[in-house]
Amino acid sequence: MSEHGIGSQVVTQIAIVVHDIEQSIDHVSRAFGMAKPEIIITDTVEKARTNYRGTSSPAQAKLAFFHLGQVDLELIEPIGGPSIWQEHLDTKGEGVHHIAFAVPDTAAAVAALKEQGMADVQHGYFEGGMYTYVDTAPQLGVMLELLEFFGK
Amino acid sequence: MSEHGIGSQVVTQIAIVVHDIEQSIDHVSRAFGMAKPEIIITDTVEKARTNYRGTSSPAQAKLAFFHLGQVDLELIEPIGGPSIWQEHLDTKGEGVHHIAFAVPDTAAAVAALKEQGMADVQHGYFEGGMYTYVDTAPQLGVMLELLEFFGK
Repeated sequence: MSEHGIGSQVVTQIAIVVHDIEQSIDHVSRAFGMAKPEIIITDTVEKARTNYRGTSSPAQAKLAFFHLGQVDLELIEPIGGPSIWQEHLDTKGEGVHHIAFAVPDTAAAVAALKEQGMADVQHGYFEGGMYTYVDTAPQLGVMLELLEFFGK
Repeated sequence: MSEHGIGSQVVTQIAIVVHDIEQSIDHVSRAFGMAKPEIIITDTVEKARTNYRGTSSPAQAKLAFFHLGQVDLELIEPIGGPSIWQEHLDTKGEGVHHIAFAVPDTAAAVAALKEQGMADVQHGYFEGGMYTYVDTAPQLGVMLELLEFFGK
């Protein structure tokens, strides 16, 4: 599979990690002349089975999505425990955390990136699918999120 | 115009500033299973009329574009003089530099963002249009590029 890379060439999200999602929603809504989206809170660890750098974590996040054509601009405010989102805030401050792709086969995509020296740093589940963050920033300049939707 | 923000809600580019564009092209091509794009060198200051933080600059850049659906992933290696790209490399290292939007009226978009305390930090011209970088990172978490295509 590695000659096909992650198996997707269509970016679906640009995600920004922020300290205060309500304040960031205000700024983004105004800059783009858009209505304020609702804030979603991710599942607890029992359902999400969040694994951060090899260990289970009770981390959650507040999320908000702005639809910018094909791509969603996603705001993420980490809450509740150690996570790759909180790590970004602590080490780099607010900024672009990842870009996301819907992949047909997470295991194959992770294996292809592993051949390039890139590692799974957090994964978990949501209703209908799973996500995996791979630390591609040293090589690609940005982290990738692999989204797989089950039964599609 | 400010109630409409920048006048566009469709993101067209995600741009990453890099030290070595050839090496970055190798990594990105492999991760996405894509052919290597050509490298474009931006116009010299006589044609581009590059203005960086209020002053003319001979800055240029090597560019490469990967087409990821609606959005291009753009790699930027700054060369030749002071620029907002080089500033990012010097202060933050490699990473996401901006996301871009095609706007109908640059002056109106810049005015709308100025009301939110965001300033034009670099602008210039290319064949058929102009670009403006507005430092929206403190409020939005990422810099915006406003692209205006003339005669369209």
